[in-house]
Amino acid sequence: MHFELDPRLEKDAALLGTLPLSQLRLMRDARFAWVVLVPMRANVCEWFDLAPPDQIQLHQEVMAVAQKLKTLSVASKINIGALGNIVRQLHVHIIARHEGDACWPGPVWGTPMHAMAPHEWAERVQHMQVLLR
Amino acid sequence: MHFELDPRLEKDAALLGTLPLSQLRLMRDARFAWVVLVPMRANVCEWFDLAPPDQIQLHQEVMAVAQKLKTLSVASKINIGALGNIVRQLHVHIIARHEGDACWPGPVWGTPMHAMAPHEWAERVQHMQVLLR
Repeated sequence: MHFELDPRLEKDAALLGTLPLSQLRLMRDARFAWVVLVPMRANVCEWFDLAPPDQIQLHQEVMAVAQKLKTLSVASKINIGALGNIVRQLHVHIIARHEGDACWPGPVWGTPMHAMAPHEWAERVQHMQVLLR
Repeated sequence: MHFELDPRLEKDAALLGTLPLSQLRLMRDARFAWVVLVPMRANVCEWFDLAPPDQIQLHQEVMAVAQKLKTLSVASKINIGALGNIVRQLHVHIIARHEGDACWPGPVWGTPMHAMAPHEWAERVQHMQVLLR
């Protein structure tokens, strides 16, 4: 079996680029600087379902992206989550949170996403490329 | 500075025991098998604020506990989250989720916890000791 992206992740998040293990994707939500890492491995639901070296590699990719996102977004707090109750394909959320933001201090998951105009979206995808460097 | 537990974590979660880096604590919530790992390091908010070897150690402790919790609870999905919007001291949530549970398929964070009778609570603390082995 080879890696195939879940169609809901494909629809909800634009590809920014790839890291050694994972796709880095930007969620289509105007409210937050919110990315997901999706390891390019087939049939993995839980983080611990990955082979042990991949578990560590995903951890390292999460740490690197989280730290860059905090700096880039001047965030109050980074939220990291691996839930997967709806989309079972393993994906890790990394979200820049600011005091007083649309969901503060609650979680962002389970709240309706806010669409963006296409030009705004294209700009944000461009802006977030720096997370890959 | 030495490690001091945030009083809200002390109140909301009972100590099950310690791993090399972290306290393992059980949340006082009747709805879920829900634990938190709290690294015993002072002044750490973000996972990437830990020294790099501690970052990996925390990751390994999260993986080990998550895998045991999934087996113990026969969970549909494990949810892992490091939020910290309210309690800033670094702590990682690991929650056994079941299809149709009280928050399914949403996150558990930000919803009111359900208290337990003291005997029920003591039993659960006993039952969960296996996560340390």
